Amino acid sequence: MSTFAIPRSVEWHETHVTILNQQKLPSVTEYLDLHTLEDVHDAIVTLKVRGAPAIGITAAYGLALAASRYETESVDEFQRRLKQDRDYLASARPTAVNLFWALDRLVAAAKSAASVNEAKTTLVHEAIRIQIEDEDVCRRIGEHALSLFHRGDRIMTICNAGSIATARYGTALAPFYLAKEKGIELSVYALETRPVLQGARLTAWELMQAGVDVTLITDNMAAQTIKAKNINAIIVGADRIAQNGDTANKIGTFGLALLAQSFGIPFYVAAPLSTIDLATKTGADIPIEERHPDEVTHLNGVRIAPEGVNVYNPAFDVTPNELITAIITEKGIVYGDYETELPSLVAKEEHHETA
Amino acid sequence: MSTFAIPRSVEWHETHVTILNQQKLPSVTEYLDLHTLEDVHDAIVTLKVRGAPAIGITAAYGLALAASRYETESVDEFQRRLKQDRDYLASARPTAVNLFWALDRLVAAAKSAASVNEAKTTLVHEAIRIQIEDEDVCRRIGEHALSLFHRGDRIMTICNAGSIATARYGTALAPFYLAKEKGIELSVYALETRPVLQGARLTAWELMQAGVDVTLITDNMAAQTIKAKNINAIIVGADRIAQNGDTANKIGTFGLALLAQSFGIPFYVAAPLSTIDLATKTGADIPIEERHPDEVTHLNGVRIAPEGVNVYNPAFDVTPNELITAIITEKGIVYGDYETELPSLVAKEEHHETA
Repeated sequence: MSTFAIPRSVEWHETHVTILNQQKLPSVTEYLDLHTLEDVHDAIVTLKVRGAPAIGITAAYGLALAASRYETESVDEFQRRLKQDRDYLASARPTAVNLFWALDRLVAAAKSAASVNEAKTTLVHEAIRIQIEDEDVCRRIGEHALSLFHRGDRIMTICNAGSIATARYGTALAPFYLAKEKGIELSVYALETRPVLQGARLTAWELMQAGVDVTLITDNMAAQTIKAKNINAIIVGADRIAQNGDTANKIGTFGLALLAQSFGIPFYVAAPLSTIDLATKTGADIPIEERHPDEVTHLNGVRIAPEGVNVYNPAFDVTPNELITAIITEKGIVYGDYETELPSLVAKEEHHETA
Repeated sequence: MSTFAIPRSVEWHETHVTILNQQKLPSVTEYLDLHTLEDVHDAIVTLKVRGAPAIGITAAYGLALAASRYETESVDEFQRRLKQDRDYLASARPTAVNLFWALDRLVAAAKSAASVNEAKTTLVHEAIRIQIEDEDVCRRIGEHALSLFHRGDRIMTICNAGSIATARYGTALAPFYLAKEKGIELSVYALETRPVLQGARLTAWELMQAGVDVTLITDNMAAQTIKAKNINAIIVGADRIAQNGDTANKIGTFGLALLAQSFGIPFYVAAPLSTIDLATKTGADIPIEERHPDEVTHLNGVRIAPEGVNVYNPAFDVTPNELITAIITEKGIVYGDYETELPSLVAKEEHHETA
């Protein structure tokens, strides 16, 4: 039997939620049991859990856990406290859309409960459903992505669109886990992804846990590696996809897409439909968040640049649609005509959900 | 009066050589007085002095310093000891061509000395001449490079082809110092240059010392920065230039050249003629040195990647000639037809030296 396993970052245990402490990776593999609403809030605030889906799942379990202990028989009182705790958890990451989405889904699910007990059960089931659905979405993305690769391919990726950022499998990393399950050999080249090093700390770690062949490089080695190692394709995740396919993702993604174009290799974006924001018409509508200069000038608390140096620290960049060979979703692969195809895919999905 | 100054990494003081301890930058600005041959050898071995020209100059002073203390009246005995100390210093960096070149130039200069005293004086003068010539070469490179820029331009660079790597001014950084002297405003965007961070530690530091406007970014921010900050050109140094113009330089240079092509901005290589190796026909003849994985997996002695992870750590890459807009030397700017122009430029220089 293999000793390898795809790591999970969140697990439900009735009396507590267990999370992987992503802050301590890769030097320490530590799982934390969260027993209270405050524990869950703190884990999100301090980035012990990260990745939009993983945050949503953790928060959902946290809310279900807290609600399971409300000592009241009054449904009104229950709903009032649920709303209060929902707001408290939502405040942990004020810009995390997935966090609000998961919490609101729980609140909505409990709305029609006839009794407090029914509401408590409903909340737990809904939280579990969110995790199962996300795992299913990731697996489907992985299946579609894997159909684009061939045995022996060498694939490059950036940041961590991985299992520990989601329920399981991840998005851009999902095809590598499925390939491993099916005995198809693929080699991954992971960019370390400065300034926060998600590639070195998280992607390299989780792929190694699962026994996937991974090689770490620094970000400026991408061009040389594509050439020397005959990279076949690049696959990345997405923070937000505009209606026309323009994709916001971790800083460095845009540069990789340009390299893919120069080398004539495909550049794939792997993301769930929930990442597609039809209200955002093009990438020009996405403001580029700039983060604190300390991320660039310090590493592990040690200064690595002169005091007082000017820093430009964009958190992500926008890859224009013409550089994206295909967008891989749980509902299939979209090539090229994103402006038409993406809205129709999202509409189908919404229809399906309503049905 | 301005409090800014272009830092120098090597200075001759008759009884000792003073060097800037580049290992301690940017947190500590420390100058070390080297009093013995062993001090100089150690400073080169431990990378306290780095940059091919700076190493050559330091070694030349070290040899002149050691020879000034030989207690003999015999020219033969003097030459014997000189050869011995030359070999000892040459062993400090067995692949540093410039180191051998500088040491051999001193040995050759002392060859025809009629007395020990004449030889001692000749050695000091020759070492000083090497430094003055290098400063002159760098200044000329800077003048030519500056002719390609315009007031207000924003220029990107990688690694440290700077003043502290040479006698003064540097190569790729020379135009910025000359612009400062002439009151022409230029803005520099410096890539931090993983894994060893020469951009963050050295380039940002030395430009700030001289009051040049510099902004630090991580290597994966290059594409976004070119777009968002309207970068006008990229300029880099060179480790070795093949006869056809293919250029070996710090890892990441090749990727920048591809980005320059994608964005339609010029990509310049600034280097002395001594960097052009006519014996190397094309970049394909240059083996890519791979360095220790620890450079990628550790920073300041702290592990930043999982234990046992595979690493690919090429020290440099080769930029093909068709991506290079121009090569800027002390004898002028060469555009495009490198295969013909470079040998003719080198031949002219050799003719001049012989004359």
